[in-house]
Amino acid sequence: MSLLVFGHKNPDTDSICSSLVMTNLKKSLGVDAVSCCLGELRKEAEFVLNYFGVEGPKLIESVREGDLCCLVDHNEYGQSVDGLENATIVEIVDHHKLGGITTPAPLSVTLRPVGCTNTILYNMYKENGVEITKPIAGLMLSAILSDTLIFRSPTTTEEDIAAGKDLAKIAGVDYEAYGMEMFKAGTSLEGYSIEEIVNMDFKAFDMGSKKVGIGQVMTLDIDSVLSRKDEYLDYINSTDYDMLYLAITDIINEGSYLLYKSPDEIVKNAFKVEPVQGAFVEGLVSRKKQLVPNLTPEVEKL
Amino acid sequence: MSLLVFGHKNPDTDSICSSLVMTNLKKSLGVDAVSCCLGELRKEAEFVLNYFGVEGPKLIESVREGDLCCLVDHNEYGQSVDGLENATIVEIVDHHKLGGITTPAPLSVTLRPVGCTNTILYNMYKENGVEITKPIAGLMLSAILSDTLIFRSPTTTEEDIAAGKDLAKIAGVDYEAYGMEMFKAGTSLEGYSIEEIVNMDFKAFDMGSKKVGIGQVMTLDIDSVLSRKDEYLDYINSTDYDMLYLAITDIINEGSYLLYKSPDEIVKNAFKVEPVQGAFVEGLVSRKKQLVPNLTPEVEKL
Repeated sequence: MSLLVFGHKNPDTDSICSSLVMTNLKKSLGVDAVSCCLGELRKEAEFVLNYFGVEGPKLIESVREGDLCCLVDHNEYGQSVDGLENATIVEIVDHHKLGGITTPAPLSVTLRPVGCTNTILYNMYKENGVEITKPIAGLMLSAILSDTLIFRSPTTTEEDIAAGKDLAKIAGVDYEAYGMEMFKAGTSLEGYSIEEIVNMDFKAFDMGSKKVGIGQVMTLDIDSVLSRKDEYLDYINSTDYDMLYLAITDIINEGSYLLYKSPDEIVKNAFKVEPVQGAFVEGLVSRKKQLVPNLTPEVEKL
Repeated sequence: MSLLVFGHKNPDTDSICSSLVMTNLKKSLGVDAVSCCLGELRKEAEFVLNYFGVEGPKLIESVREGDLCCLVDHNEYGQSVDGLENATIVEIVDHHKLGGITTPAPLSVTLRPVGCTNTILYNMYKENGVEITKPIAGLMLSAILSDTLIFRSPTTTEEDIAAGKDLAKIAGVDYEAYGMEMFKAGTSLEGYSIEEIVNMDFKAFDMGSKKVGIGQVMTLDIDSVLSRKDEYLDYINSTDYDMLYLAITDIINEGSYLLYKSPDEIVKNAFKVEPVQGAFVEGLVSRKKQLVPNLTPEVEKL
């Protein structure tokens, strides 16, 4: 019976790459294994697989009693495949907190407090003397760059950086340039209309007597928005909100570009920036914790 | 703050040696660590420490919020130190089934389906390039011989045998002769009360809604137990476990005599023997691989 290797539901790049990389390791060690995933690929993982010419995992929805499972990048029932309670977990490789899974028999569990599951898998390849080919290195590197935001996230460890730098050499890419390209592809707004983008993650608020709309788009495809600034503003100004703020958030550089229908004074006071369309507000990443509490008193002052 | 390294409650030779061996590994890697134990040493572990001239772990009863803990040879709250829920678990090394511990943050967990925790620790010394001295080799070897019944237990893996043979060379002993000497010293029941014998190597399990206790006594003197069968049963029936099984294991003939507080049907179905007190179950030597998995479905059927 094949070993089913899968990451968590709603899979990110680490879950997809971990599944493929672990499956390749198992096969190299003589184990009959199949790479699986619990949801459709996101744009970022799709970019990675295309870039390194690797076929994606098989989509599965549930497992049955007797199925042999290897969990990567998660170790909680709630995040895992339907039916896991009745299947047989033979191995877990993960970098998250312990999630309370219980098993009826001993198994292999390898958890390490590092930034990415693929950093652990990188070390498992080394320990087992299994060759890291160029596509495998590409998958591992992509997952590490994705999980650590190119080594910028506070979860990044020395081990992630050492593994990432070695893998970049094997994969033959400049990790900074490649990582930016990957994030850009993953957050691409191609195929969406301006109206769809503004309303993608949009909430309406009552502040004093004013009706205020706040939209947020996480993307590295900043230029695709800012180069069409006037079209965005035409749409934003046509809405019947008293004020409308669109934050185009750059997750790598940790800040947001603002497009708005608003008195200049509010923008100036709420965000401490020159009130120009497309102004960059450093550190502004959260609507709930920053946009709303910063705007509310300024709007209510009117 | 020191890292507290400890095995399970009611410690066996593997728990005592794992604590000492892991503490030495941590210290060799520059970590401030203290070897602890959650109960008095048994005769077998005492023999081992005397033989190799090593001081035993520090006895502790509980841990407090903020204490840094490393669990060896167990990974269940029920088997661990009091107060563990409030302390910080930073590492677990074990060879048992996953026991449902949850943590608020990522940590290191190394579980392997091998016969002894010290086989995993042996590999960790190798991976970290830390020297295995003669006394450390003696502790590791003793734990492996103890847990695998000198490689006779069905839990024994190729890895245990390879590690054990290498360690015997470093420790400078003939493993078969040394193992027999250790078991002889360790299984003498002289000076113990019936209550002490039943609880010598005892674990509690929740199976379905039932509280089930399983004790195991490895001894070379079966008659000293079976000749006092009625006194044992008086004690066993007086406990508040829904079911209690005591396996008196003959490691030479590879089987166990059973004394129990249990519906006859469970004994019959779980072990395929006539349900009489003192019944001999051929081949039954492992609690983890045989007693627990055989009993669990039968008890849960109730």
